[in-house]
Amino acid sequence: MKKHNFSLLAALLLLPLSLMAQDKKQFTLDNLIPGGATFWDFYPEYTYCAWNDNVLMELDADNAYKVSDNKGKLLKNRETFLTKDDINSQIDQEKYGKVRSMMYCSFDYPGQPVVTVQTDKGKLQYDYKNKQVVWFGARNIGAQAEKFEKNSRNTAFVKDHNLFVRTADGTTNQLTADGSRELVYGQSVHRDEFGITEGLFWSPKGNRLAFYRMDQSMVADYPQVDIFKREATYEPDKYPMAGMTSHKVTVGIYDVQTGKTVYLKAGDPTDRYFSNISWAPDEQTVYMIELPRSQDKAELVSYDAKTGERLKVLYTETHPKYVHPVHPITFLPWNDKQFIYQSERDGYNHLYLFDVEGKELKQLTKGQFVVQELVGFNSKAKSVIIRSTEASPIRSNFYSVSVKSGKRQVLDGGEGVHSGKLSADGRYILNSWSSPKVTRRYDLVATEKVSTPQTLLDSKDPWEGYDVPEITGGTIKAADGTTDLYYRLIKPTNFDASKRYPAVVYVYGGPGIRNVEEARNYDARGWEIYMAQKGYVIYVLDNRGSCDRGFEFESCTYRHLGDEEMKDQMEGVRFLKSLPYVDADRIGVHGWSFGGFMTTNLMLTYPETFKVGVAGGPVIDWKYYEVMYGERYMDTPEENPEGYQNSSLLNKAKNLKGRLQIIIGYNDPTCVPQHSLSFLNACMEAGTQPDFFAYPGQGHNMIGISRVHLHDRITRYFEDYLK
Amino acid sequence: MKKHNFSLLAALLLLPLSLMAQDKKQFTLDNLIPGGATFWDFYPEYTYCAWNDNVLMELDADNAYKVSDNKGKLLKNRETFLTKDDINSQIDQEKYGKVRSMMYCSFDYPGQPVVTVQTDKGKLQYDYKNKQVVWFGARNIGAQAEKFEKNSRNTAFVKDHNLFVRTADGTTNQLTADGSRELVYGQSVHRDEFGITEGLFWSPKGNRLAFYRMDQSMVADYPQVDIFKREATYEPDKYPMAGMTSHKVTVGIYDVQTGKTVYLKAGDPTDRYFSNISWAPDEQTVYMIELPRSQDKAELVSYDAKTGERLKVLYTETHPKYVHPVHPITFLPWNDKQFIYQSERDGYNHLYLFDVEGKELKQLTKGQFVVQELVGFNSKAKSVIIRSTEASPIRSNFYSVSVKSGKRQVLDGGEGVHSGKLSADGRYILNSWSSPKVTRRYDLVATEKVSTPQTLLDSKDPWEGYDVPEITGGTIKAADGTTDLYYRLIKPTNFDASKRYPAVVYVYGGPGIRNVEEARNYDARGWEIYMAQKGYVIYVLDNRGSCDRGFEFESCTYRHLGDEEMKDQMEGVRFLKSLPYVDADRIGVHGWSFGGFMTTNLMLTYPETFKVGVAGGPVIDWKYYEVMYGERYMDTPEENPEGYQNSSLLNKAKNLKGRLQIIIGYNDPTCVPQHSLSFLNACMEAGTQPDFFAYPGQGHNMIGISRVHLHDRITRYFEDYLK
Repeated sequence: MKKHNFSLLAALLLLPLSLMAQDKKQFTLDNLIPGGATFWDFYPEYTYCAWNDNVLMELDADNAYKVSDNKGKLLKNRETFLTKDDINSQIDQEKYGKVRSMMYCSFDYPGQPVVTVQTDKGKLQYDYKNKQVVWFGARNIGAQAEKFEKNSRNTAFVKDHNLFVRTADGTTNQLTADGSRELVYGQSVHRDEFGITEGLFWSPKGNRLAFYRMDQSMVADYPQVDIFKREATYEPDKYPMAGMTSHKVTVGIYDVQTGKTVYLKAGDPTDRYFSNISWAPDEQTVYMIELPRSQDKAELVSYDAKTGERLKVLYTETHPKYVHPVHPITFLPWNDKQFIYQSERDGYNHLYLFDVEGKELKQLTKGQFVVQELVGFNSKAKSVIIRSTEASPIRSNFYSVSVKSGKRQVLDGGEGVHSGKLSADGRYILNSWSSPKVTRRYDLVATEKVSTPQTLLDSKDPWEGYDVPEITGGTIKAADGTTDLYYRLIKPTNFDASKRYPAVVYVYGGPGIRNVEEARNYDARGWEIYMAQKGYVIYVLDNRGSCDRGFEFESCTYRHLGDEEMKDQMEGVRFLKSLPYVDADRIGVHGWSFGGFMTTNLMLTYPETFKVGVAGGPVIDWKYYEVMYGERYMDTPEENPEGYQNSSLLNKAKNLKGRLQIIIGYNDPTCVPQHSLSFLNACMEAGTQPDFFAYPGQGHNMIGISRVHLHDRITRYFEDYLK
Repeated sequence: MKKHNFSLLAALLLLPLSLMAQDKKQFTLDNLIPGGATFWDFYPEYTYCAWNDNVLMELDADNAYKVSDNKGKLLKNRETFLTKDDINSQIDQEKYGKVRSMMYCSFDYPGQPVVTVQTDKGKLQYDYKNKQVVWFGARNIGAQAEKFEKNSRNTAFVKDHNLFVRTADGTTNQLTADGSRELVYGQSVHRDEFGITEGLFWSPKGNRLAFYRMDQSMVADYPQVDIFKREATYEPDKYPMAGMTSHKVTVGIYDVQTGKTVYLKAGDPTDRYFSNISWAPDEQTVYMIELPRSQDKAELVSYDAKTGERLKVLYTETHPKYVHPVHPITFLPWNDKQFIYQSERDGYNHLYLFDVEGKELKQLTKGQFVVQELVGFNSKAKSVIIRSTEASPIRSNFYSVSVKSGKRQVLDGGEGVHSGKLSADGRYILNSWSSPKVTRRYDLVATEKVSTPQTLLDSKDPWEGYDVPEITGGTIKAADGTTDLYYRLIKPTNFDASKRYPAVVYVYGGPGIRNVEEARNYDARGWEIYMAQKGYVIYVLDNRGSCDRGFEFESCTYRHLGDEEMKDQMEGVRFLKSLPYVDADRIGVHGWSFGGFMTTNLMLTYPETFKVGVAGGPVIDWKYYEVMYGERYMDTPEENPEGYQNSSLLNKAKNLKGRLQIIIGYNDPTCVPQHSLSFLNACMEAGTQPDFFAYPGQGHNMIGISRVHLHDRITRYFEDYLK
């Protein structure tokens, strides 16, 4: 509707104002869904930045601009600091390749005029003062994992399943020779649970490397199939299911000087988890948090990095449900004998100060809120910088916490949802945030004294002129009658209070995730906007069992996943039905992963309430889920047979009344297809009719254009059966 | 509608008579679909029979009744001949087990009073005159294949992939030790093409065993997955796709007396087919029909059974398209130097008489009709008994053919569709048949002189009182303007000529199969009856490319499968649209396998015509189909790139406009899931939206209750989108 002819314009002038909303531009899925052709055009303006000591740099493809002085003051006009061409013109491109973009450059050596950039041929460190190459490391083609340590300039990497270390001079040492898909080195273990995301851990100065070794030869293969070969091929994927034999993990320490590897003498690795690896500042001691398979105990243990000897259990935490450590210990930059340990032991994740002997010195933060991130330190002020929910369970704000006094002060005004990165000595934050009132803002914030934030970029609303629905936040009481639950509610565009609209509940509901935040649009997803435009009310409620509300809130679902979550969602539905403009006979539900489990469960448990559901990558029976996540919340099938029986949707297949579409990534390695396929069979046996779709080659979540296709598909299903 | 209250009855009395049809009983899918709980209650009455010499026996669980004398005259009242209890009371049940049913007993030794029955423990041969056990062979638990030879009482069987022969006295010899899933002995080869259904071939007196040996170690595995294990497991299945490396077959001959095996010296088995194995009456010579991978040549070759030496090429047939032999040679019972060879060389499958030197003596049958079966011989009259389409392309009747004069005479009146079994010397047939007028009839028919058939059982219409639609047959012209094509047309029940109904085309359309026969209801499938009851017109047309109409009719699709077939189906649609009661805007299409290919192709090629389609187990791209069938009709992808390109539905995914649901058996070993999954991906890339469903654990066709579920699913789809 970009071009109007004159008569149409004239006609429009005669219409009542209320109809003018129809003249607003309509979103397509390509505008709103990641992977859509025009998605980034509809995304709030963003910028790339990096800290150079305490000076903030703004980056684009060609340039690094200086945008602040080193005292935290934004410049009036940014200054070109260093350009791609500056570097390219000074280096031997034949040898080092060409710098293609400054967007991801970094300044890793405070006090030194050195920038790190990527070229076609590798990683280049360039002295922009003396205009010369400081160091170059060739690109490691085909590496399965890689970790660079900036002080030593050592690089650890994994290739063909084996582990290598390349030192600054380019010499490469092979550490292992028996690596395979069954014996995995230097990669993430325990299926990325316990906060684990990688398998290579350099000591602070790069003299030693800790790495994971995972023997999974005894683990069952889940048979994935690649249909894109000339003839489909078998792609086995080690997947230990709840109660089944799991892998064995050990931790090696490689000494760069001696070239020798020792393994931490942690004892029999059978059914144990070795998590949250960290180093002492002096590189002599390695720490990890160890859990038994039952996950009801966490021990912080120190090891001698030279000999691998187990030194001491510094701290033990137990809980009859589970202990869930996801943060490695962090040493104070100004005291290498003290570190911070994070624990939920008082009901909320908080910071505790310990000394290296394991003596607990003090609880640094306390209260009915959650510390979400230990961002870093202001060494001068001796404060910890954190992000927490102190201002509100649906906000996330920066605070400084004095290690001495424990005094906290909010740094960002206390509204909205913030994230950011500290300058080299922690005196400043580049704070990126949004709120229902703020589209997106980049502020420079001081961490010592609270100051008025200086705004680097205040993004314009990218949806201006478009038919944007009304999005509000609010709370209702949980099914327990006391707990506040947060929701967002989206009304159809061109809303008419006298009409009755179909409503779709979007749900996740599982641990570790929350959907409602006091960010822009209350964090509404693009599809919700699209559905509002199609005439649906959208409702999203974070039930008990979701995250950032403390241990009891999240763990009340222990051993019977789904039950409390659904009770709360039904409170949400009760609220929805109380709205005069919601048609109680046209309630739908949609969710993915745990939300797929919730969607299917709600359809089968409350068949009179939900007319249409779309469940993506659902858990159908927790016995098909993996050991680490599954047993934390459900124990094993042997320990908790009733819990597994009652939560199995295979047993509820007969209850299906409405229209339910199950959608999976055909190669989902997380929530394997066995879940959904078993459900289809259970429905066949029960004589009920679910619908089904699979995206070949896709995993647990659709990405790229398939994500747009998926949301077209989901929308079409509601349009077919709920409209 | 079983219970009426009085006022409803009173109201009905006031309605015009034409509406009373609604009072007829309505079918459920369970009544009409094989696998349904009440399917057999709605199936025409049937009976089990066996020939004892020239005496016809009728069998039930407890008894064998004599129902005819030995001169082909049915008795007025059947006589109990032998009972289960007779046998059980006379045998040592501890040793031989217990006879559970007489239903499958047989009388295999003309002139001897011996019955063969199964007991719990094995195969028992019992002399009912002298009331004693003649022979017993213990059950072979776990055999992958088994073949009993009645004269020698030798049994060949395959266990754990290896081949064994057990002689009459129970001695077992192991013939092979290297059998595996890669090296297959004694089972069907070449994926059941060329009429092959088994891999063990006893010589006429049981002194020698011919068997297949298939090396498929070089063939790619299609990765099937069993989701019913605790954790899904990999089930590889050797599947050579068009143009890819195929298996190698050889034929072994085991001599029971010497215990030695020779292999037929047929030369390099690479890319060759060894089919239609048969024996000379004297057991000294083995015959097979050999084809190159190109399938454009068939050679009938004789081998010395003792040495394996290749003796002679007796007959060679070539065709620029393909030669498709599916019948082994058959020796005349009264002349062991003459045999019958079947060939389509004159355009229709006919019988040719040869002598063992390979001299063609005469063409026994001739005309524009197809010999469908060589049923056997009347040795006294020296005639061949066949079934053919001579009376009509959609009938199948018994004829005797005099070997001497070539004179044919129809034995069964020439109406309907017949099948049956000859008595020991071929003088009589137990003829089971139906026609649009005859539900099902079992007649005793003489083969020498045409006589009035005597009726053993004339089945009542099992659908009396039910709301049965009008089913008619007819012909239209093919797209070539000259060829007659046969259809059946089913009107909705409670038909009102003034209304306009949605219509569904059911289609197969591929070689080797026809859908329209002049049998009961023109061979309508139960689902068609169900749909008629739901208010749909059903139309089924056998297009060019289908079987029993001669070589040109079936092979006009060579190298471009789908094209001619669709043109003819569109003629059918033109006819449908000409019917005043068909709503041209609501045409749907449904088919399975080749019919799934046709359905998908029609939806994508004529998107303006077809609004809704359900395609089951479809071929999507012939490159994913197997070598034997696929290359016969399409050559290899290398030889016929345009043909493969043009017929690939992946390239047409963008054309999808209507609603198309693809349904597969998740473990389909015939039309592997790669077809449909590739199509889903092509649609995702093209931005079109097919629907999809899969039945875990099911193969190319749904069986049991899943078949009922499937048809409920198919019906629902048309009800959702075509009604």
